[in-house]
Amino acid sequence: MSLTFFTPGPAHLYPTFEQHLKTFVENQLGSISHRSQQYRDLHKFTVDQLRTLLNVPDTHAILFLGSASEAWERILFSTVELESFHLVNGSFSKKFYDYSNALNKYAHLFEKPMGEGFTADEIAVPEYAELIATTHNETSSGVQMPVAEIHKLKQKNPSKFIAVDMVSSAPYPALDYSIIDTAFFSVQKAFGLPAGLGVWIVNERALEKSKSIRNTYSIGAHNDLPTLWKNAQSNETPATPNVMGIYLLGKIAEDFNRIGVQNVRKETEHKAGLIYDFIEKTAGFSAFVKEKAFQSQTVIVADVEVPSADIIKNMKAKGIVIGSGYGAGKATQLRIANFPATSLQQTETMLHELGKL
Amino acid sequence: MSLTFFTPGPAHLYPTFEQHLKTFVENQLGSISHRSQQYRDLHKFTVDQLRTLLNVPDTHAILFLGSASEAWERILFSTVELESFHLVNGSFSKKFYDYSNALNKYAHLFEKPMGEGFTADEIAVPEYAELIATTHNETSSGVQMPVAEIHKLKQKNPSKFIAVDMVSSAPYPALDYSIIDTAFFSVQKAFGLPAGLGVWIVNERALEKSKSIRNTYSIGAHNDLPTLWKNAQSNETPATPNVMGIYLLGKIAEDFNRIGVQNVRKETEHKAGLIYDFIEKTAGFSAFVKEKAFQSQTVIVADVEVPSADIIKNMKAKGIVIGSGYGAGKATQLRIANFPATSLQQTETMLHELGKL
Repeated sequence: MSLTFFTPGPAHLYPTFEQHLKTFVENQLGSISHRSQQYRDLHKFTVDQLRTLLNVPDTHAILFLGSASEAWERILFSTVELESFHLVNGSFSKKFYDYSNALNKYAHLFEKPMGEGFTADEIAVPEYAELIATTHNETSSGVQMPVAEIHKLKQKNPSKFIAVDMVSSAPYPALDYSIIDTAFFSVQKAFGLPAGLGVWIVNERALEKSKSIRNTYSIGAHNDLPTLWKNAQSNETPATPNVMGIYLLGKIAEDFNRIGVQNVRKETEHKAGLIYDFIEKTAGFSAFVKEKAFQSQTVIVADVEVPSADIIKNMKAKGIVIGSGYGAGKATQLRIANFPATSLQQTETMLHELGKL
Repeated sequence: MSLTFFTPGPAHLYPTFEQHLKTFVENQLGSISHRSQQYRDLHKFTVDQLRTLLNVPDTHAILFLGSASEAWERILFSTVELESFHLVNGSFSKKFYDYSNALNKYAHLFEKPMGEGFTADEIAVPEYAELIATTHNETSSGVQMPVAEIHKLKQKNPSKFIAVDMVSSAPYPALDYSIIDTAFFSVQKAFGLPAGLGVWIVNERALEKSKSIRNTYSIGAHNDLPTLWKNAQSNETPATPNVMGIYLLGKIAEDFNRIGVQNVRKETEHKAGLIYDFIEKTAGFSAFVKEKAFQSQTVIVADVEVPSADIIKNMKAKGIVIGSGYGAGKATQLRIANFPATSLQQTETMLHELGKL
């Protein structure tokens, strides 16, 4: 039986994935040299499609890493000599904070319980913090930080770097890269691809900082920003890249561009609206994130009265896979991914079946 | 026209690759949770197949990274507080050395020109070096360091860690892991897979060292050894892994195990013998690596009298892709990969066509 995945990543693969994969194999792209013009054209195609999709200006490079987690490390190496500042309200924002400590930086913390969100006005950034680490979409708790609040936070602190974790929401958030220094995501979430590739969007200001601090502090050796940036200028990567992942990402981004990013975002909101509506109106379900402004549009977390494992099992019998809660919420919550790969009709079917349980 | 790739990576894909990829897609393995039993079984299958293939004892973990280059960094972070020592005779062994400097370690160097090799007897390891970095197969120059010399070097320096770069030779070198602390490779070489996955074999002694130094020196944040190791105990990874790459690697390793690693190695030697024989006997060709003991069995470098670009172009017209020389050797050398994905018959055809030019 073919399954439909509403899991928050790895997630349902985008409907065109198989066709793109077939083209990749037929054209023997898995064997091309990563120092050939053929590769550089492929690389440029993906970067160009992402640039269009996410409206990324030429002040920012679009770089490829092994995973989005690697971006946490590379951002800290590149922009922080001594101190970073982290908004933490779930497991993944906490890991960004942990990475800073592991790199022997001083990591400041403003922490809220799982399920709660942040507004710019309540945040006092420590004076010596060089980086503000925000999470647009906390995959563990289903909390989003509204893009307007992220922009406002940076505008209040223009001298600091601001990083946006949009691992499980891109291309949904319409970030303004004239304000945002760096952001990152991985491909196994809303892009509907197999895991194994992280995308790092980063500006010249971060590059300059990394160059200015590297004589005093290590900025890392593998995929350090100056080397990545230099290679990206000629559409290459320092090490052999995940050519298949980069190719597939470019083709999916092209598909999104054909639909239009505004339409992709509108459909995301429409489907999210249906899911939240169901959760609010159905006995035994309630939204874990109470404040509407903080409710994620891409990873929707529901408290459930019956054990979530039972619901997941019964839904799977119908060919629909729903995610469990994360960590402490594993037994009592559902996480329902709302990515472009699952259509409006599949979403309606999923909710219909959930309602019949 | 379908091409046969004799390039040193990305390389020709293994003949069974397409079938394994098809199975992966049909079973929707790109969407499974990396915290599920289904994933843990898949992960364990690949580790078990690699353990059998490479004869890796339980004292060593088999870990997955984004690329083999990442292994350079993680080995340095894990085993070196202050000083490392590098045998450098080409571009990739040089990069391992560069990584050590970039991490603010003191990197000692014993350097030889491209094309020359190392024996254990001529190597004096600096007293305070904690790690000896060796390269079994220098992809840039086609020089191998005989496995017996690597073992001897470690036996002469039992208190040091020894690392073996076998990026472009595994599973060819029969390393003795009762002696070797750590080794690594990537999948786009002799395993005949698309790039995007590195494999790191590392022992408990390195784990203990990383734990003992982490309070004084950063051992990195992303894929740090203690976290990777802990996750590997339950057949998981800290971040979302390249599930597709790990699955395909397990299936190719299984294919190799069916053939038998001794047979895979024998065929490698047989084909390498044919290629070196051709180079020695054909006017206009000569082996770049003069000493037989140092001639790589998997990446064979030939000096050519006509511009290598012309040979490469003419061969490509016949559907055969040969690699150019690396760096300074680009115009005057050919690099011919000799991996399991290209059969004896394909090798004979390639040499036949090369002889007709």
